[in-house]
This record gives sequence, C-alpha cells and structure tokens, in this order.
Amino acid sequence: MEIRACLFDVFGTVVDWRSSVSRDLAAFARQHGMAPLDWVEFTVEWRRLYQPSMEEVRSGRRPWTILDVLHRESLRALLERYRIRGLSEAQVDHLSRAWHRLDPWPDVLEGLNRLKRKHIIAPCSNGNIALMVNLAKRAGLPWDCILGAETARAYKPMPEAYRASCRQLDLAPAAVLMVAAHNADLKAAKAQGLATAFVPRPAEHGPGQTSDLAPDPSCVDFAAPSFVDLAAKLGC
Amino acid sequence: MEIRACLFDVFGTVVDWRSSVSRDLAAFARQHGMAPLDWVEFTVEWRRLYQPSMEEVRSGRRPWTILDVLHRESLRALLERYRIRGLSEAQVDHLSRAWHRLDPWPDVLEGLNRLKRKHIIAPCSNGNIALMVNLAKRAGLPWDCILGAETARAYKPMPEAYRASCRQLDLAPAAVLMVAAHNADLKAAKAQGLATAFVPRPAEHGPGQTSDLAPDPSCVDFAAPSFVDLAAKLGC
Repeated sequence: MEIRACLFDVFGTVVDWRSSVSRDLAAFARQHGMAPLDWVEFTVEWRRLYQPSMEEVRSGRRPWTILDVLHRESLRALLERYRIRGLSEAQVDHLSRAWHRLDPWPDVLEGLNRLKRKHIIAPCSNGNIALMVNLAKRAGLPWDCILGAETARAYKPMPEAYRASCRQLDLAPAAVLMVAAHNADLKAAKAQGLATAFVPRPAEHGPGQTSDLAPDPSCVDFAAPSFVDLAAKLGC
Repeated sequence: MEIRACLFDVFGTVVDWRSSVSRDLAAFARQHGMAPLDWVEFTVEWRRLYQPSMEEVRSGRRPWTILDVLHRESLRALLERYRIRGLSEAQVDHLSRAWHRLDPWPDVLEGLNRLKRKHIIAPCSNGNIALMVNLAKRAGLPWDCILGAETARAYKPMPEAYRASCRQLDLAPAAVLMVAAHNADLKAAKAQGLATAFVPRPAEHGPGQTSDLAPDPSCVDFAAPSFVDLAAKLGC
C-alpha cells in the first residue's frame, strides 16, 4: 500500500534532547550563579524518570495526565534529590519547559521539508500538544498537524497511540509510516499494522551508546541513515 | 495581555465553501454525464443540514461523531431527496470529501504566513483532523497544528471547543485570538475569555448576503477587512 503519511517519534529521533536540555539547564545555572553541577548527568536522571512517570498513566493507576505535568513533577523530585532549593515557581516552570527548546539533528529540516512535499508529516510523540507546537515553532519543524499522546489520550507504546493517529488522519495503518530511532517504538507500531522506518541516532545517549544502533529486521520495513536518505528512499 | 496564538474558524472565514463545493460537484456531474442540476442550490441545502447534524451530538442524543461522518450522512439524505441514484460507495466517499477540497479567500495565504511569524496559528473549526489536514495540504495553509472539534471532542459554539484549544496550547484564553467571519462564533469565544477578531466575508453566502456583514461591537475586539489587514493590525 502507498505511504500517505509519515509519523515521527520526536525525543531522540527528531531532536537531540540530551545535549539540548543539559545546555539549557547549564545556561540557566550560569545566569543565576548556581553551584557547578554535571547537567548532562542531571538531564539523564530526569529522562530516567520519564518511563516510570508515564507508566503510572498507562497502568490506569493515574488518570490521563499530559507530559508537561509529568516532566515538571520529575524535575521537582530531582531538584530535591540534588538539594537545589530557592527557585521560584516561574523558574521551575521555565526549567521544566526545557523540553520545549530542543534542537533537531542536522538532517531533520531538509528531510522533513522533502517528505512533506508528497506526504502528510506529523509527530507521534508522547509530548503534549503545547510542547510539540512550541518545539516546532522554535526549531522550524514543518509539521502538517500534531498527533500523538494527547490527541490519542494514550502514551506509546500503547496500541491506541498509533491507532488513534491513523484514525484521525482517516488512513489505513498500512498507509502510515512510523519513523523512529527506537526499535521498541517500531515494534509497537508494526503490531498495529503501520509501516516502519528506522533512522539510527547513535549519539542520542552520548558516547558509548549501546542500544538501537541498528534496525531490528523483525519489525523494520525501511532503514536509512538520515531523514534526507529516508526522503530519497521514499522518492521525495 | 499579549496575543500568543490565533485560532481560525475555517468554513466561510478561511475558505469559500459555497463556490468550492458546488464547483467540485458540478465537475463530477459533468465527468459522469449526470443530468443537469443547480449544484449551488444543492451545496446550500447540504450546508443547511450542517447545524442540525452537529446539534444531535451537542445535545448528547448522539455520541461523539466527527464531521466527515455527518457530512456523508447529510449527502446521502440529499442524494435521496434529489433522486440521484446509482453512485458507488467510493463515489459517495469522493463527493462527501468535497469539503476537503475548498479554496481559500484571496487574502488568506499572505495573511496566515505573516501572522505565523509572530503567533501560533491553528484552525478552531468543527471540521475533523483529516478534513483540516487534507484541506490545508491542498490549499497551502501553513497551520502550526490542528485544533478544534475533534481534539476538543466538542462542536462549536460549545464552551469546551474554545477552552480545550487554549488548554492544549497551554495559554490563557486572553492570550488567544479567535478569528471568524461569524459574530455568533466570536460571541461564544468571548464568553470563554478569548480575544476576538472579525473579518467579513460578504460573499460567503453568495450575492445578497444579509448576515454577518459587520462586526458585533459587543463581542469583537478587532475588525479587519482581510487577513492581511489583521496581520498588519497585530504588528506582523
């Protein structure tokens, strides 16, 4: 079946969250004369709270809650753990929205603009709408619409996150290509009938990354070294 | 409060549904050798079924149903009334999606591109996501995201349609400008605390239009003759 839409994982696949968040935090710390800290480590710890926070929602133990709220709660817990005190609510808000200020990998803008000529392009991220919109405005990501966890009211890899996105585009899953740097995301998408494309991001977790260096052939239809190569592979 | 996002009514405000749908239907009829018919009248009758079909959902008599489904049901009823028979399901699907193929008014593309430089721009329409995406792709509307009835699960002028759109952007209603050619839409938006802008579309209903020729000062903050003038008024 012809691909009509491309859905993208965002954190790690489209944007380099590790460098962006740690640089954002470090700049804030510098401006406010805070004690030196390994902000990369802090960022990695923050990200480590990401899956457990969503799991509370996936499991039904917690009602639907958008990622901005989860990010802020995780940040509060980390600030406590690192004994960083005295920040105002507005400052915590600002730091929490570091996830709205992420830089794309270098191939992303050209790749997305080429893919957009022939296809609908949209994020299918666990980020909420405001996060995705602010991130896209700042980075120049030319999405046709914002899909994902908030429009589906389900966090990936729940089936509904993928199914709702196809349904909202009125497309059969086989006409929708899920693009991610994470095999687990593609495996979950493939289980719902979507086509899949793997683009490796070997620097997502910094030097020495060991996960997701290569596509899992059991769930990946296309593999390309960059969004630009993916566009070429799809004839865009 | 500073305006951060502009939300737009679409049918009538952004696009000329009457000319577009009737032209689309007439072209189909010509291609398929159908008997002559006043397709403008047919289009107006189709649109007349729009509010009653949504009212079934607004009232709670019918569970949430997207506009594509309502449009298709109304079309089926009209085809029956006009005794147009023998169309395949695929042909009815195609005609029903005439609402995905609407042309913008001449000032829209320049106006939206200018407004987008400083603001988030999004539809807040009763059209569903697929309809809005397909319409935007075809017409070149540069939305930052698609908001409205489907993401709110509420049809305008229900309060939730406006409130959900502000909430999903994480903006206070006063930081959001609702733009429409219809005073009733702006009145409902204003009641939820949004800023409002009226752009007249005196040809929406064809020659002799009597409604919405001027802004209602009780609910309109800005009035501009076109999207380009509105952009200038907002300093874009």
